[in-house]
Amino acid sequence: MTATPQTSPVPARPGRPRSARADKAILEATLDLLAEEAGVAGVSMEAVAARAGVGKTTVYRRWPNKERLIVDALAALKHPLPELAGRSVREDLLTLARSIGADHTDRRSRCVWNVLGGFDRHPELLARYRQEVIEPRREVVRGVLRRGVATGELRPDLDIEVAVTMLVGAMTLQGRVPAPPPADPAGAAERLAEGVVDALLRGIAA
Amino acid sequence: MTATPQTSPVPARPGRPRSARADKAILEATLDLLAEEAGVAGVSMEAVAARAGVGKTTVYRRWPNKERLIVDALAALKHPLPELAGRSVREDLLTLARSIGADHTDRRSRCVWNVLGGFDRHPELLARYRQEVIEPRREVVRGVLRRGVATGELRPDLDIEVAVTMLVGAMTLQGRVPAPPPADPAGAAERLAEGVVDALLRGIAA
Repeated sequence: MTATPQTSPVPARPGRPRSARADKAILEATLDLLAEEAGVAGVSMEAVAARAGVGKTTVYRRWPNKERLIVDALAALKHPLPELAGRSVREDLLTLARSIGADHTDRRSRCVWNVLGGFDRHPELLARYRQEVIEPRREVVRGVLRRGVATGELRPDLDIEVAVTMLVGAMTLQGRVPAPPPADPAGAAERLAEGVVDALLRGIAA
Repeated sequence: MTATPQTSPVPARPGRPRSARADKAILEATLDLLAEEAGVAGVSMEAVAARAGVGKTTVYRRWPNKERLIVDALAALKHPLPELAGRSVREDLLTLARSIGADHTDRRSRCVWNVLGGFDRHPELLARYRQEVIEPRREVVRGVLRRGVATGELRPDLDIEVAVTMLVGAMTLQGRVPAPPPADPAGAAERLAEGVVDALLRGIAA
């Protein structure tokens, strides 16, 4: 999901590594600008180029407009989709819960909220963010749930979309209105992931 | 939870109704400014007064600073906490799920995201928002869950905080990255509320 191209191992293309470094600097500059007060409004191709220390044409060579650039920068914030062991639904949901939680507790990832506030004014940005960042992740969760129905681990009448929304909603809520950090953040994150997955699987009714 | 003072029924205080109207105009102006691109940075006591059509001293008479004003404006966006019938945990959780969902699908309430993006820079705003808007609502959900444990409707070992996070997280996620509106928004909202509450109660495991 990261937007940075692979550095080519072929020595015949000496321009590649420099280009990868420029891409990384451009994505970082975009995230820095997004994290500032003005959010999407503070991002322009000019401001990104200046902050990344590259020429404007270098930015335009890779990204035709700021909406594409912002979506790639937000995608680069996410951890790569985790490998799933495929042994049990509980284990795979726990892996996903940890990964989603980690994407949202990182202080830097809070610049995402600045973008969400601007979605009404930027429908193309919203559509691309859904399609390129949100949907691929939801689809991985759906896959685990569908497999669970097929193996009989999950209810045959499971509403997959509701279950996805519960897992993702619970694991993203914590980052939204951050509480004072707990004494043991890693332990707290793990307890939340396990608590959410087990409550989702077993239910809370007696 | 709304910040507008009650209009006094006592006719001896003729200034009251005008003051209530001014308060409402000030809160509306604050929300309008928050909904614009700059979010919290776009709100100043001066800009609010100008947009509300009142003098700056009228704003300062009620709110000592913009952080207090913003928290009251965000609180006014929320629906009043619903009456709970208290007959069953399922019915009360469903009432809460509908109410939380309604708070987050309203297009106007999306200005909240602009504020969340600014929390790192405004710790007082964050602390007040937690204390005055988030916590009273979570406490109502906790109350329903505690009663359910006491009546035996819910598991005796229930992790209350996890269950609150699942209900609130699922019902707020939809508003965050808005999908194209469904053909039947009211029906979709009701199906989500019921789906979430039933999955939470029964679990998704076979």
